[in-house]
Amino acid sequence: MSLQGKKIAILIAPRGTEEPEFVKPREAVMQAGATVTVIGLEAGEAETVNGDLDPGGRYAVDAAIEGASASQFDGLVIPGGCVGADKLRASKDVIALVHDFVAQGKPIGVICHGPWTLVEADVVRGRKLTSYPTLQTDIRNAGGEWVDQEVVTDQGLVTSRNPKDLPAFCAKIVEEFSEGRHAGQAESA
Amino acid sequence: MSLQGKKIAILIAPRGTEEPEFVKPREAVMQAGATVTVIGLEAGEAETVNGDLDPGGRYAVDAAIEGASASQFDGLVIPGGCVGADKLRASKDVIALVHDFVAQGKPIGVICHGPWTLVEADVVRGRKLTSYPTLQTDIRNAGGEWVDQEVVTDQGLVTSRNPKDLPAFCAKIVEEFSEGRHAGQAESA
Repeated sequence: MSLQGKKIAILIAPRGTEEPEFVKPREAVMQAGATVTVIGLEAGEAETVNGDLDPGGRYAVDAAIEGASASQFDGLVIPGGCVGADKLRASKDVIALVHDFVAQGKPIGVICHGPWTLVEADVVRGRKLTSYPTLQTDIRNAGGEWVDQEVVTDQGLVTSRNPKDLPAFCAKIVEEFSEGRHAGQAESA
Repeated sequence: MSLQGKKIAILIAPRGTEEPEFVKPREAVMQAGATVTVIGLEAGEAETVNGDLDPGGRYAVDAAIEGASASQFDGLVIPGGCVGADKLRASKDVIALVHDFVAQGKPIGVICHGPWTLVEADVVRGRKLTSYPTLQTDIRNAGGEWVDQEVVTDQGLVTSRNPKDLPAFCAKIVEEFSEGRHAGQAESA
C-alpha cells in the first residue's frame, strides 16, 4: 500500500501526547511514502509522555495549528494521552480543523483519548467508533455508537483503544489514507 | 461554621490527582472539625501531580473504595487532575459511591476534571454546575447546565473550575457539609 504523494498531518499537544501513539503512526505513514506534517498548538517543541505521567521524548512542531487547513492534507492522525488529548480539545483551531477534515470526507485516524476532539467537534453522531474505555460515556452522550474493538473503521474514520492496538491501527490508517476521500464521512459534519 | 462530628470522604487516584485540589479541601474540612477519610482505588499510597504532569506528594489511603458506602459519610470531595479524574471515572465502585451520595441527598464538592465522575454516574441531568472548561461539552451532552463561575452550588452539589478557585470552593463545601442533606439533590439520582 503506497502513500506516495500523500500529505498527512499529525497533531501533538505541547505536553502530554502519548509517545508511541505519536511515534508509531507517524513512522507507519512515512514508511508508506507519505509526507508528514507535525501540527502543534504553537511553533517550537512538544514533549510527549509514556503511560500516565512518565516523560517521553521531545519533538519539533512543523506547523502551528493557526493557519493549518484541512485542504492542505489528505489525512489526519490524532494521538491520545489523557493530558495531551485534553489540551487538544481545548483549542478552537484544532476543533475547526477536525470538523473540516470530516466535512471534506477525508480519512482520520484517532486513538485512545484522542476521540475527545471528535466529541468536541460534534462529528460522532451516528458513527461507530472505539476509544480508551473512559471516553465511552462521553461518546455515547455525543450520539456515537461506542464499541470495544482493537480497530474500528467507519467511512474513513479509524479508531483504536490504546497503545497495544497500534499495529492494527497503523495498518488500517495506511489503508484508509491510501483509499482517499470517503463521501459518506462528510454527512457527519 | 463547624463540622464537628461530621465524617467527610475525599477520593484520590493511585496517580494523577491534582495536589492542591486534594490537600486544600482536606485541610479546610479538618480545620472545621470534620473527620476525613481518604478513599483510594486500593489500599496503600497514592501519588498526586502538580499542574499537568509534575510530581506532587505521596499520601496514605485510609480506605479502599471496595466496601466504602455513602451511608458511612456526611459529605464527599472529588478532586481533579486530568489523569486522576480519568482513573476515578473508570472505577465502577467510585461511580456507585458517587451515585449513592446523590441518591441520599448528601452534599458533594467536585472540582476541575472531577465532574467526569458525575457524568459517568449520570447525575448531572438538570443540574447547574461548572468544571475545568474542557469538560463543558461532556457535561452539556450529559444533560447538565454548564456555567463559567468560580463556584456553583446547586442543591448540595458544589463545583469549581481549577486550583485558583480553591478558596471559594473550600469555603462553600464547608458551608454545604455543615448544612447536611439536601432533599432536592436526591431527585437527580
